[in-house]
Amino acid sequence: MLKDQFYNYIQDLQDRITSSLETLDGTARFKEDIWKRAEGGGGRTRVIENGGVFEKGGVNISAVHGELPKSMQQHFGVSEADFFACGLSLVLHPKNPMVPTVHANWRYFEMYNKDGEIVDQWFGGGQDLTPYYLFDEDAIHFHSICKNACDLHDKDFYSKYKSRCDAYFWNAHRNEARGVGGLFFDYCKASEHMSMNQWYDFVTEVGNSFLDAYVPIVEQRKDLEYSKEQRDWQEIRRGRYVEFNLVHDKGTLFGLKTNGRIESILMSLPPHAQWVYDHYPKAGSEEERLIEVLKKPKNWV
Amino acid sequence: MLKDQFYNYIQDLQDRITSSLETLDGTARFKEDIWKRAEGGGGRTRVIENGGVFEKGGVNISAVHGELPKSMQQHFGVSEADFFACGLSLVLHPKNPMVPTVHANWRYFEMYNKDGEIVDQWFGGGQDLTPYYLFDEDAIHFHSICKNACDLHDKDFYSKYKSRCDAYFWNAHRNEARGVGGLFFDYCKASEHMSMNQWYDFVTEVGNSFLDAYVPIVEQRKDLEYSKEQRDWQEIRRGRYVEFNLVHDKGTLFGLKTNGRIESILMSLPPHAQWVYDHYPKAGSEEERLIEVLKKPKNWV
Repeated sequence: MLKDQFYNYIQDLQDRITSSLETLDGTARFKEDIWKRAEGGGGRTRVIENGGVFEKGGVNISAVHGELPKSMQQHFGVSEADFFACGLSLVLHPKNPMVPTVHANWRYFEMYNKDGEIVDQWFGGGQDLTPYYLFDEDAIHFHSICKNACDLHDKDFYSKYKSRCDAYFWNAHRNEARGVGGLFFDYCKASEHMSMNQWYDFVTEVGNSFLDAYVPIVEQRKDLEYSKEQRDWQEIRRGRYVEFNLVHDKGTLFGLKTNGRIESILMSLPPHAQWVYDHYPKAGSEEERLIEVLKKPKNWV
Repeated sequence: MLKDQFYNYIQDLQDRITSSLETLDGTARFKEDIWKRAEGGGGRTRVIENGGVFEKGGVNISAVHGELPKSMQQHFGVSEADFFACGLSLVLHPKNPMVPTVHANWRYFEMYNKDGEIVDQWFGGGQDLTPYYLFDEDAIHFHSICKNACDLHDKDFYSKYKSRCDAYFWNAHRNEARGVGGLFFDYCKASEHMSMNQWYDFVTEVGNSFLDAYVPIVEQRKDLEYSKEQRDWQEIRRGRYVEFNLVHDKGTLFGLKTNGRIESILMSLPPHAQWVYDHYPKAGSEEERLIEVLKKPKNWV
């Protein structure tokens, strides 16, 4: 069954990602928390803190099922139904402000009628990069890997899901993007063009591309020197990350308002954030160049 | 007219509060920003940063008017109308973790028909305290001042508005209060018991009580010694303050989603915040005692 196949996939992907990141970090190990959901299912949260490279991060999987909560019924415009949902969610906040934060998520959802037959099912997910100092070649590398993964399945996917990523991770009250984007897709359902098995192949292709998209950037930047001022700038930008996640991110708000596992949801928040009143970077600075790109998302490939 | 009377009052109160806080701080001065709202009105934002006592804080007034925005029409369940709103909002984040953060707000709202006649009008506001280390006598002092101000107008007000404060500043996803509360009132409209002028007297009584409620606490605690660990705890708790303001606070969300002046709205956010995965204070510690009180709001007077 597709759900078992995908859940096995994300279990294995979690292992591959955490093992690779531990090697990259060199110091800290992921701490694992297994949790259960009272209404059905649970998850395996893996968090790394105070590492050599990663100041804080989580690589979490969950598989939950049961009656569709009221708030989800409203959201999907359906009445009482049973559901199954599983996915992998990760956020990594490196210590060095030259290394970007990364976020990724791959998920699968099924809804059932009273006889337990699947009445709806879809995949969703994506991956996106949030730099504090912009190295153009890093953004190009990340987007190239995203595009390659997409192109193997449909030549239109990259530009479509790149645009959706820019639109979704838009910090509307600041009128700027959270970062330099990547991919975002949702409600990937069977159609005349794509069967569910083909969507599975696409989503796992993107999942498999994650380490190639991110690890070389970390390796390239993790030992660069930085100043106290650059670290302050990183923390101010992490304030914006908090603002996006708590004000706009549908997944976070949904989790907070439906009694999800709070600590697994909020592992996405950065270890340190700052808010400085009416802060603007100096004219002509690297900090200002980042903001300009965030205000007008670019095509990187 | 009541609106001019109240606007004059908050202008004067802003002067009294900022002048008193500058004396208390001893080092930093408030920086003033005058801003205009494209659709009508504007404000006077005063922010203090990196002071001797106050790490960050704002004492802002605004008076805005024009057509009621669509989102406010929905919120109030009315169709097109003109409105006027003015108020004073303040948040102060002291540097020393032994000194509590404080928030206060006093506001007045009018709605008009096509002939410019007032069809609805009300006052709202309150003041509440958020300690990082709990000195019972500080909470008792703050609540006593709140109660005295209330009792001069109605013997039922204190317990009513104290309960509403506990209910409003509830960080639902954490199942704990933001702080030790104070007063919260809204939609204070003319009735057989209270005229609008009597509400004016009550709200300004509370406004006038603010400095008496807060300043003695700051004086008492501002020179206490503290450790790096206590400062970390303060920043972790400030993360909860951010969570409340961005996820639950109606005023903040409303401002962010209706194109308010972002920097004036978000001056409420703390200068530094931390998020540590699955953090719990040690059994029997002062930090744990605070959490216990936040989970079960107490009657202080």
